[in-house]
Amino acid sequence: MARHPADIDAWLDETREERLADYLEFLRIPSISTLPAHAADCRRAAGFLADHLRQAGLEHVEVAETEGHPVVYADWLHAEGRPTVLVYGHYDVQPADPLDLWEKPPFDPRVEGGRVYARGAADDKSNVHAHLQAARGWLADGGTLPINLKYVFEGEEESGSEHLDHWLSANRERLAADLAVVSDTGFFDGNVPAITVGLRGIMYAQLNVSGPTVDLHSGGYGGTVRNPATVLCEIVAGLHDAEGRVNVPGFYDDVRPLSVRDREEFARLPFDEDAYRASTGVDALWGESGFTTLERRGGRPTLEVNGIWGGFQGEGAKTIIPAHAHAKVSCRLVRDQDPERIFALVRDRILQLAPAGVRVEVTYIHGGLPSLTPIDHPATQAAARSLREVFGGDPVYIREGGSVPVTASFESILGLPVVLLGFTPPDDRAHAPNESMRLDNYEQGTRTIVRYWQALAETPLE
Amino acid sequence: MARHPADIDAWLDETREERLADYLEFLRIPSISTLPAHAADCRRAAGFLADHLRQAGLEHVEVAETEGHPVVYADWLHAEGRPTVLVYGHYDVQPADPLDLWEKPPFDPRVEGGRVYARGAADDKSNVHAHLQAARGWLADGGTLPINLKYVFEGEEESGSEHLDHWLSANRERLAADLAVVSDTGFFDGNVPAITVGLRGIMYAQLNVSGPTVDLHSGGYGGTVRNPATVLCEIVAGLHDAEGRVNVPGFYDDVRPLSVRDREEFARLPFDEDAYRASTGVDALWGESGFTTLERRGGRPTLEVNGIWGGFQGEGAKTIIPAHAHAKVSCRLVRDQDPERIFALVRDRILQLAPAGVRVEVTYIHGGLPSLTPIDHPATQAAARSLREVFGGDPVYIREGGSVPVTASFESILGLPVVLLGFTPPDDRAHAPNESMRLDNYEQGTRTIVRYWQALAETPLE
Repeated sequence: MARHPADIDAWLDETREERLADYLEFLRIPSISTLPAHAADCRRAAGFLADHLRQAGLEHVEVAETEGHPVVYADWLHAEGRPTVLVYGHYDVQPADPLDLWEKPPFDPRVEGGRVYARGAADDKSNVHAHLQAARGWLADGGTLPINLKYVFEGEEESGSEHLDHWLSANRERLAADLAVVSDTGFFDGNVPAITVGLRGIMYAQLNVSGPTVDLHSGGYGGTVRNPATVLCEIVAGLHDAEGRVNVPGFYDDVRPLSVRDREEFARLPFDEDAYRASTGVDALWGESGFTTLERRGGRPTLEVNGIWGGFQGEGAKTIIPAHAHAKVSCRLVRDQDPERIFALVRDRILQLAPAGVRVEVTYIHGGLPSLTPIDHPATQAAARSLREVFGGDPVYIREGGSVPVTASFESILGLPVVLLGFTPPDDRAHAPNESMRLDNYEQGTRTIVRYWQALAETPLE
Repeated sequence: MARHPADIDAWLDETREERLADYLEFLRIPSISTLPAHAADCRRAAGFLADHLRQAGLEHVEVAETEGHPVVYADWLHAEGRPTVLVYGHYDVQPADPLDLWEKPPFDPRVEGGRVYARGAADDKSNVHAHLQAARGWLADGGTLPINLKYVFEGEEESGSEHLDHWLSANRERLAADLAVVSDTGFFDGNVPAITVGLRGIMYAQLNVSGPTVDLHSGGYGGTVRNPATVLCEIVAGLHDAEGRVNVPGFYDDVRPLSVRDREEFARLPFDEDAYRASTGVDALWGESGFTTLERRGGRPTLEVNGIWGGFQGEGAKTIIPAHAHAKVSCRLVRDQDPERIFALVRDRILQLAPAGVRVEVTYIHGGLPSLTPIDHPATQAAARSLREVFGGDPVYIREGGSVPVTASFESILGLPVVLLGFTPPDDRAHAPNESMRLDNYEQGTRTIVRYWQALAETPLE
């Protein structure tokens, strides 16, 4: 029975409460992929998805084992002659610490002021759940989908998607498609509907500085041995110059300079720099000199310290020279930087900065390639039409600062064009305390997906 | 009945076995002051001392309550016209862990190869017990002491002497004296008799750098806001110059330059620099250029990072810009640096290094004055003569890197000159497993104290 998006809208209106309750149930599962203690919760979230995919009417549902958390696969392949789209999202979430900054427990979701508050409410359970409901809507009451769909829901996005590439390679034939739709992004400032056409890549590393065998008394040894915490700071300080540029020889060698067109696109975006600044709570923005804030975020590579630790961190005083000190250091990469090459350059620079008297080690944690999708690709334009129908007004095309390494994997391993379509609001506090999702974005996002499948059914992708 | 040190020597020879048995009994009490479970043992050790002081013939013996473990007080004040000396030691000991590294149980002392092995055998029960026996020797058989003595034995030295200053202030009149003899130090490398004539002071502070209100996603904000962890590192890196000097304007203004004599004294010390280095596990020593290791440790001020923290410290990856980052920073001070003035200078330098886009705050945690007893003070020279008579050969004068805050308390609260005279060998493993005391040092130390009281009776202290 062929149905139309308007039919699905009616079904979505009728099921609104039940769908919200189900979304909250999904959010109650603390599927934190980086913490081994939550491995069973990740598996529970995978099971939740598999059950719901099956109930929605999808086929070949599988909780596929990897060496890490499982991948959930499902498909529906009965739209003969129509395109096949691979949908990607992730069911894992970031850790919730610092817990004391959450106004309510992160895994006890609450609805307030048109928003759902919980860890994962936005990133990425909102998008995953919207996909589930869009498929369910099409297939409800004996309906069919207008295109062929394959779903890949991952459980390790927040921990570096370590095992996904291997699984994609091993399942290359089963995953054959015409297009990948990656739903792990969101809207632009002011909650303006957006299609992400660029993502930064990432290189994540750890810096370890070791000195004495054990913590030393800072009285008996202060001033006579190198202090690993001080050395760590000196090394970190040596990784930027006074202009905010990354001070690593070769770091910018492979960066495509921003073209005049690129800079025009950035300048066209309805960006309220002061609101962006105010949302962070800082009194002044900062960055590489010679670039605007949007260019710095979407078009330029960076190096950030994600964490530092070493020695005494308690109340009061302890007079030691720490035996070791550590930093998590990551780079956001742009086309055509390669994570492994950047790791080697950063490592070499760090080792060059390391003085005698300490041992310095740099380890690679994970990496992901940057990615760029053309604005004029027919699948990008079909997504734009669907957003316009639901939200009214043209979407903007953005180059995001974040990284969804899987995007590059779909491009390189499966050879697919990738459209990045997600619905989270820009003020969602993803990765931070009090993460939230706008319910409107969730509902309208679901309706956009419904239309997008219809639009793709009518769009030649070649 | 006036007696002479030689008479006491004979008494010490006769009582050697009995005194050793008593010393071992003292060591069997696990008076670990930092562990609440051992509070009763601390009280038992205090009671042991009070009983023994009374039996030795001392007067006004008191187990004085504080808000922590008690202070044991006793005196003997019948040497009219002679100086009054306040003796300090402590009856508490360090925790014994890691227990599995002890060859025998830490509180079941054994004698082997001329040493006593037990927790506290050296630090500080050896010195305390030697003082007890010296007084007992003088007062045995109806004898008298050649000077007036007041004993203060503390039970919280290993847990920070938290309540001692208050007790000293409250008992200022009762503690009036001409000199304090602090017995909590030991001999120099090679077991060379030593008098400690300098201790460094301390200034302990915390540096807080705050940026965004909450941790930000390093994708969406990387490269556009100042990273508090990076700023913290840049500030810390700005606190030293390339020559290892503290890069804080005014920091060295009040430092007395090392005189030719000072440097000769440091150079005379039989110091095995390579053994010192090897004991730390580092492959090279480091420090302020233009100074030797001993000068850096005992004669120059330092600035050390005792701890750093901020952002993500777990396994794997979390892609955030930390909302804040922190460091514990402390300075070891030399004469005539003042902790509060140094704090103000360090704070001003840090605020000068703070860029826009973050808030930087520096808080004072605690401070202690440096102390330096002149080598040519008559009480120092009397101690040197006593050591020479017993051990043969000249003692060395050492300036230690550490701080014994009680020393500064005796100077500042009671207005006393302080002589630091203790007898533990440099290889005593104080604070570590298999702590031991050389019996020779203990016996000869007792004889040195006997002579020191006689020498002070003959020395004008003004």
